[in-house]
Amino acid sequence: MKRIGVLTSGGDAPGMNSAIRAVVRKASYRGVEVYGINYGYAGLVAGDIRKLTSKDVSDIIQKGGTMLYSARYPQFSTEEGQLKGIEQLKKYGIEGLVTIGGDGTFKGANALTKHGYPCVGIPGTIDNDIIGTDYTIGFDTAINTVLDALDKIRDTATSHVRTFVIEVMGRDAGDIALWTGVGSGAEQIIIPEVDFDITKIANSIREGRQRGKKHTLIVLAEGVMGGNEFAEKLDAIDNFHVRVTELGHVQRGGSPTARDRVLASQFGAHAVDCLIDGKGGIALGIQGEKIVENDITDVTSGKHRNEPNLALYQLNQEISN
Amino acid sequence: MKRIGVLTSGGDAPGMNSAIRAVVRKASYRGVEVYGINYGYAGLVAGDIRKLTSKDVSDIIQKGGTMLYSARYPQFSTEEGQLKGIEQLKKYGIEGLVTIGGDGTFKGANALTKHGYPCVGIPGTIDNDIIGTDYTIGFDTAINTVLDALDKIRDTATSHVRTFVIEVMGRDAGDIALWTGVGSGAEQIIIPEVDFDITKIANSIREGRQRGKKHTLIVLAEGVMGGNEFAEKLDAIDNFHVRVTELGHVQRGGSPTARDRVLASQFGAHAVDCLIDGKGGIALGIQGEKIVENDITDVTSGKHRNEPNLALYQLNQEISN
Amino acid sequence: MKRIGVLTSGGDAPGMNSAIRAVVRKASYRGVEVYGINYGYAGLVAGDIRKLTSKDVSDIIQKGGTMLYSARYPQFSTEEGQLKGIEQLKKYGIEGLVTIGGDGTFKGANALTKHGYPCVGIPGTIDNDIIGTDYTIGFDTAINTVLDALDKIRDTATSHVRTFVIEVMGRDAGDIALWTGVGSGAEQIIIPEVDFDITKIANSIREGRQRGKKHTLIVLAEGVMGGNEFAEKLDAIDNFHVRVTELGHVQRGGSPTARDRVLASQFGAHAVDCLIDGKGGIALGIQGEKIVENDITDVTSGKHRNEPNLALYQLNQEISN
Amino acid sequence: MKRIGVLTSGGDAPGMNSAIRAVVRKASYRGVEVYGINYGYAGLVAGDIRKLTSKDVSDIIQKGGTMLYSARYPQFSTEEGQLKGIEQLKKYGIEGLVTIGGDGTFKGANALTKHGYPCVGIPGTIDNDIIGTDYTIGFDTAINTVLDALDKIRDTATSHVRTFVIEVMGRDAGDIALWTGVGSGAEQIIIPEVDFDITKIANSIREGRQRGKKHTLIVLAEGVMGGNEFAEKLDAIDNFHVRVTELGHVQRGGSPTARDRVLASQFGAHAVDCLIDGKGGIALGIQGEKIVENDITDVTSGKHRNEPNLALYQLNQEISN
Repeated sequence: MKRIGVLTSGGDAPGMNSAIRAVVRKASYRGVEVYGINYGYAGLVAGDIRKLTSKDVSDIIQKGGTMLYSARYPQFSTEEGQLKGIEQLKKYGIEGLVTIGGDGTFKGANALTKHGYPCVGIPGTIDNDIIGTDYTIGFDTAINTVLDALDKIRDTATSHVRTFVIEVMGRDAGDIALWTGVGSGAEQIIIPEVDFDITKIANSIREGRQRGKKHTLIVLAEGVMGGNEFAEKLDAIDNFHVRVTELGHVQRGGSPTARDRVLASQFGAHAVDCLIDGKGGIALGIQGEKIVENDITDVTSGKHRNEPNLALYQLNQEISN
Repeated sequence: MKRIGVLTSGGDAPGMNSAIRAVVRKASYRGVEVYGINYGYAGLVAGDIRKLTSKDVSDIIQKGGTMLYSARYPQFSTEEGQLKGIEQLKKYGIEGLVTIGGDGTFKGANALTKHGYPCVGIPGTIDNDIIGTDYTIGFDTAINTVLDALDKIRDTATSHVRTFVIEVMGRDAGDIALWTGVGSGAEQIIIPEVDFDITKIANSIREGRQRGKKHTLIVLAEGVMGGNEFAEKLDAIDNFHVRVTELGHVQRGGSPTARDRVLASQFGAHAVDCLIDGKGGIALGIQGEKIVENDITDVTSGKHRNEPNLALYQLNQEISN
Repeated sequence: MKRIGVLTSGGDAPGMNSAIRAVVRKASYRGVEVYGINYGYAGLVAGDIRKLTSKDVSDIIQKGGTMLYSARYPQFSTEEGQLKGIEQLKKYGIEGLVTIGGDGTFKGANALTKHGYPCVGIPGTIDNDIIGTDYTIGFDTAINTVLDALDKIRDTATSHVRTFVIEVMGRDAGDIALWTGVGSGAEQIIIPEVDFDITKIANSIREGRQRGKKHTLIVLAEGVMGGNEFAEKLDAIDNFHVRVTELGHVQRGGSPTARDRVLASQFGAHAVDCLIDGKGGIALGIQGEKIVENDITDVTSGKHRNEPNLALYQLNQEISN
Repeated sequence: MKRIGVLTSGGDAPGMNSAIRAVVRKASYRGVEVYGINYGYAGLVAGDIRKLTSKDVSDIIQKGGTMLYSARYPQFSTEEGQLKGIEQLKKYGIEGLVTIGGDGTFKGANALTKHGYPCVGIPGTIDNDIIGTDYTIGFDTAINTVLDALDKIRDTATSHVRTFVIEVMGRDAGDIALWTGVGSGAEQIIIPEVDFDITKIANSIREGRQRGKKHTLIVLAEGVMGGNEFAEKLDAIDNFHVRVTELGHVQRGGSPTARDRVLASQFGAHAVDCLIDGKGGIALGIQGEKIVENDITDVTSGKHRNEPNLALYQLNQEISN
């Protein structure tokens, strides 16, 4: 293998740049050239491709976002799009592809591999909702960003003795809500994986107030419902004057944390080794602190584990009041 | 004067604790006792009052929020409420009062002074909308918090080549939007002080894209309209797919910046000097780096200066594209 | 079991407060009282002990340092000290003890357990040098603090095309240097676990300059030698004008990261379960994302694993140039 | 005027990039080209010069360091060096120069102006030691960086009941020490402008301990003496076991604060106006929130004001114990 490609696709995540850097540097170390593909699969089909040298990835390890830009490109689910993509790769003499992103990105990589073109997927999404990996790149940064916001909101919640609902990202997976709920000492965590009882929550707020609690923080994953909708449900029960904050896109940005940089570096370097060793159809993951190679077909066809989440949920029930 | 009181009222602001600390410590230095009143004017009327020693204010200089809690209490605009408040103060032997907050807080202090009870107001609000002062406590922290969020949003805006509207606090004053707009290099700043032309903005976004701009950031003061409403107006002109982030209450919290801590310390100490020197009816301010004593009646009956804002607005027009 | 105690000992670490909170809250959930012992084993022997309620640990999850204070107390290695400690515990009716700290703390806990008094150790040290756990409380915060400093130093190193040696904590274990070296993209990482060749390093700096590298960052674990000593060795070879920064005690402080808060909460709650279930002589750890119970005698008599470290070291060699 | 140049010289400071961006953008707005000179006066003499477009300064407003690199170049104090510099500028058709830096930078600009070549100086140094300006670019960022470190050190100082000496930058001016000393609530601030009495300081630490103070922070400007030397003096009086932290080059880096970005933008734009209006020999400053144009000969031949510093020093004496 003389030349590999790398792209980022789907929602951006802090640490994607660290992974790109590791791909380029590790490939250079092993005597392989790297080409960067801009705007994910859209840029692949359009041939928006350029050579990346070691110098091109200097001083990007600490930067949020992705230097290769990203895009959603549903058309890549068609065979036509996939074959066009492979054509472009062949035109540039690129023999293997590293794709960094979430579930949609992995599906594209899986399709390419099935067409005989070797791909390795690196899990890069703040949502931590990829099968076969304990963590995805960007999750650690996102939860620290959210936690920082929750710490700030607690200042004002305490000062005014108020109840806050903070809506965080997470359509199908409650990981962000869970980790930041436990980390902030939030009284309530509302996630897609566990049903909630609005009356019990209302009672719990009232009891807390009676015991002298100065604030109630409720961390809500967006996949359950919107923050305003949840607040209305609570206020319908009692006159709580619930305040709502939607953290929004702030959660996707920022300089990656130490963990995300290290994890991204490990993934990037390992992906290069896979391709050089002739392996494709792989989704990288970290399990029990070890980098693992999962079958990308399995990863894109199953469901995100939720056992660890239930344990954290239970922990918070026990220590947050 | 043997005993003074201190309270915080209205929306909380980072640096209020630094100011409380300075009041207590400076009073102690000058041999005067300090009593803290919880929950602003509400607590004053209710007699929620406690002695504060130098030790009580240890290690609070860096904390967001207010250790004296805050509340909005419209009833204090009645003479009945004011007289009850004075009664409580006399009951505790408190001879002068430092009130920390915004316009509403100052109006209460003004009323008390008119009833013959000396008050000194310290401008504490993130909005920077108090007459007679270049800066209010909390403003500097708030703009750095907003800037941090804008930097993060730019990561994702650049990665996806998107237009973002970020709604920030500021009902009547565009100060937060202006400073953070200039500070983040936002393409557009929308503030109550200046009319905007939605068609020109749309054209400007299109032109920027054609020149290769990877993102457009629009910082919008909430006093103009909501972020979603603004985004709809833009999307009605062209298919921009504008994303919206409302930063919300995150803006009120956080550990105060160096400026806010120093300014709060100066204000707190100066307020004590005023009361001991027999001065009441004063709103403190900083003008041209000097602490000044304004007449609180003037401060509560005029309108926030906007000359400096217009200069910053013009600057951004010239250097943001 | 009706009453348990908790103490922190040795160097403080961010997240200790989160662990204390979890101990108190989980015990309360299970109907057990908690007493806090100030100043570690010194306070234990002196009887500096107080009851802790759920409210006492409100709003401490985010605070650096330890609300129970800490101290080094070598006298506790004597049987006399240990028996005095047990006497105090019995006086207060405390039937089991949670000790949070590093190796020295665990040795004290081991001794108490051998005297028949059940103890559970929670690994709390920024150094990450405890056997039987992938991570200790405080490590994640410390590496992010160091990384933030390294990012800042890179700004100035790049602007001036300079070589910097940054000395970080780590007497026997290079974990902090390794993670932050990889995370910052440092050109060189010098740790106790691996020998270094000063001539090769000097050559590598010169080659980097010739290739146009704008800066060289060398992250050095204090256990190898001091930063100034290392810089002198380098400057003796060539006229590099190496700059040195010792990060010092800044590394111990700060609000804990999400990971440290969650890990500390898990450890704290689990420790309470152990004691109530009649288990003593245990050092908690996390291995492969699971909380494990190690024999505290094993943990205090072995040597910190360094396999993972060697893999990270090798990774950095391959991707940092 | 059709073409101007810009350079940064001396120690780098956060906000230099914001100023460069404003120079380029404002010049473009006024129809003037900008050339960037790398490595300060060294690069000027060597002819290391390149055109800068609006796009070249995209997304640099938030970056620490300087994209034009910096260098110290004592040779520029000779007439020979200065004339060579002017020759290069003329070769490129550059008709006026913006120089960003501290006292040394301004001296170079003054010399060029005296040779008939118009220069405008922008005060860019973290030390805040330039005459005729309340603030320099980088000072606000530096004091917030130092404050963050002091907050972290206080965590550990409190946990262990210790005395810390923290050595901060400032050879001739105590501004960094003063602002961060007041901002952190440090018990002692030691600056070049005010003599200190080591015995009184030792007594004050002892008295604080007796009153139950958990920590003593002493912020020391490097211009007075080294941190270790100061600690030894204290420990010679009593067995304080003083800990020392030198913050070092961390103080120069980091993303600029809102203030520094806004101030740098104002300075950069104003400098362009000056040159286009035919003004040279000017050192820009901010006084009482207004941008002012000082005579650069005056600025480089006087002494930094210290009146404001003495007031802050006195304030800290009164409220820090």
